[in-house]
Amino acid sequence: MPDKKDMKSKLSDLQEKIKRLETLIDTSLVFSSILDLSELLNIVLNKAEEVMEAEASSVFLIDKAKRELYFITARGEKGKEAKEIRVPMGKGIVGWVAEHGRPLLVPDVTKDPRWFKGVDKKTKFVTRSIIAVPLISKGKMIGVSEVLNKKGNRHFNENDLELFEALGHQIAIAIENASLYTELDELFLSSIRAIVEAVDAKDPYTKGHSARVVEYSLLIGEAYENLSKDELKQLEVSAILHDVGKIGVPDKILGKPGKLTPVEYAYMQRHSEFGSAIIEPIAKLRELIPNILHHHEQFDGRGYPHGLQGNKIPLFARIICIVDSFDAMTTDRPYRKKRNTKKALDELEKQSGTQFDPELVKIFIKVFKQRKKT
Amino acid sequence: MPDKKDMKSKLSDLQEKIKRLETLIDTSLVFSSILDLSELLNIVLNKAEEVMEAEASSVFLIDKAKRELYFITARGEKGKEAKEIRVPMGKGIVGWVAEHGRPLLVPDVTKDPRWFKGVDKKTKFVTRSIIAVPLISKGKMIGVSEVLNKKGNRHFNENDLELFEALGHQIAIAIENASLYTELDELFLSSIRAIVEAVDAKDPYTKGHSARVVEYSLLIGEAYENLSKDELKQLEVSAILHDVGKIGVPDKILGKPGKLTPVEYAYMQRHSEFGSAIIEPIAKLRELIPNILHHHEQFDGRGYPHGLQGNKIPLFARIICIVDSFDAMTTDRPYRKKRNTKKALDELEKQSGTQFDPELVKIFIKVFKQRKKT
Repeated sequence: MPDKKDMKSKLSDLQEKIKRLETLIDTSLVFSSILDLSELLNIVLNKAEEVMEAEASSVFLIDKAKRELYFITARGEKGKEAKEIRVPMGKGIVGWVAEHGRPLLVPDVTKDPRWFKGVDKKTKFVTRSIIAVPLISKGKMIGVSEVLNKKGNRHFNENDLELFEALGHQIAIAIENASLYTELDELFLSSIRAIVEAVDAKDPYTKGHSARVVEYSLLIGEAYENLSKDELKQLEVSAILHDVGKIGVPDKILGKPGKLTPVEYAYMQRHSEFGSAIIEPIAKLRELIPNILHHHEQFDGRGYPHGLQGNKIPLFARIICIVDSFDAMTTDRPYRKKRNTKKALDELEKQSGTQFDPELVKIFIKVFKQRKKT
Repeated sequence: MPDKKDMKSKLSDLQEKIKRLETLIDTSLVFSSILDLSELLNIVLNKAEEVMEAEASSVFLIDKAKRELYFITARGEKGKEAKEIRVPMGKGIVGWVAEHGRPLLVPDVTKDPRWFKGVDKKTKFVTRSIIAVPLISKGKMIGVSEVLNKKGNRHFNENDLELFEALGHQIAIAIENASLYTELDELFLSSIRAIVEAVDAKDPYTKGHSARVVEYSLLIGEAYENLSKDELKQLEVSAILHDVGKIGVPDKILGKPGKLTPVEYAYMQRHSEFGSAIIEPIAKLRELIPNILHHHEQFDGRGYPHGLQGNKIPLFARIICIVDSFDAMTTDRPYRKKRNTKKALDELEKQSGTQFDPELVKIFIKVFKQRKKT
């Protein structure tokens, strides 16, 4: 009864196919949930290897200007610099796929003249077989993904190729979304940074001030225990905007070469309130207002505008307060020369517990010195 | 031979299942390709009806603050205001699903005490049967989606429920991504708007100027032929930033109550170059520089900074030039009272072809008068 036998094999084929389709539905949910590009690339590589039973995988993105493909070996040891590998367009299997926009199954790379040994040399990996597919999102090629060496010394076949092509569609869209999100985020940050830098530059003595306050704030933030990526982002945005209220302070006060009169000083102090008022209409930034409003409070309660004390002052305002003073001390002012780093750090220590949060001063001194060594 | 018969029915079951899974793979690619929220909601409703063979569908989002669900009847006639429908949490089928976080199949709504007739009354639709599923993304419920009335007078069954649940996962993630993207875009726009408004507010006579220039520029942009959504966005951002360079102009020139000296005037004119320099470091905004740099060029070539003529001046700079002058004429200045709208429009017409692009002046006068009537 060949009919029954046929049906049996057909049944098992269909069951296999269902398994593959269910896998693809699962990966699509996973990929589309991630908008952070580097996190996404990691998950994509893991899933590609798992689903394709491959020993290794990579995602190459296209650098149009240089007509090159590049990938970051993202899964290196923690803390190690990611290694970038570049392949010229048209060169090797991956370059061929990018140039022709077609998928390619190479069961044995040693027999394929397109095979380019350069990457194996750099990665110390021995490639036997490859499937490479173009990553096409909205009709535009954005890169190439490949899986290397089917586990258990097997060879990739046509079924594998079909599965990886379907996976490639999902990978392309997910990368495109994450890239768009990342670009928009970068646009937001760079725009507020650029405008604030223009405000800093009104006074030649404060040129670059906000950028340094951001840098130093993040040094503390990264060393402080358990701040999430989102919290570090909030610290960064607060630090960028801490002096945005200086837009409301007349230039003749901002740039006055001598000591400010009491009236002028009172006006100058209002910049933290002006800053809060500027970001007040922005719903998504409203939670950052306390960080900006209170960045001139002192730990002993003698700061402004509210005379808050100790931990009543928001953590990020306490951080910004320290690095803001540090940057002021280590840059020239019209009425005095800058101090050297050592003297400025000594001064922070001296004011620790009165002006500044002592725990945060300790962290800053430690990480600042470490940074100088590297 | 029951065995063979069994296998046949099993084969057809599996083939059906494969069709459903392939549909889901297809919808996941479609949904995840769209980051524009209103476009996404339209596609989601279309696809949900197509895949589920339903007569109608809706997506409700959760308004946590008000403990309500709401949806926008997005597919109304063009130009008509979208109608918002609100359902209290816990009320009706949709409210029940939102409260319990569980999917629900209701083959006959008239027999279900949870059925809430309010929405049918508003939409003039007669509901017979419903499947409603919670939309859960990253463990958080963001809304409820439902399909109404299986076509051909059929009833929804358990298979349909399973399929729509799977679709619900995709819808939830796609809506979450589009919302995050839309929110970030809004954050970018509102941030640059807020900072620029603070610059405007330094001079009480220019308070609100940039916001009005944005509004008027978009009036022209929307009436101008064939500008894409992306181009209108570029016009909007250019208009927001057209005077950002005033950060670099000393307050005593910006706010001078009398006529500027030639030296002061020359300084004031540099604000378009300062503005270009401010956004120069922002890769994504670099293409907008010409719109900002040239917004004081005149159609006859007698403007600044480059004396460009006619269509050599970028379109968006020509638009901003007109509405910038119009806003200046219709607001008080320290050295003169504002003109009324009619006189200001007459003046635009008078300078049409010399200072301003005549075609654009015509459009502005037309749309400005139309707007006043509505």
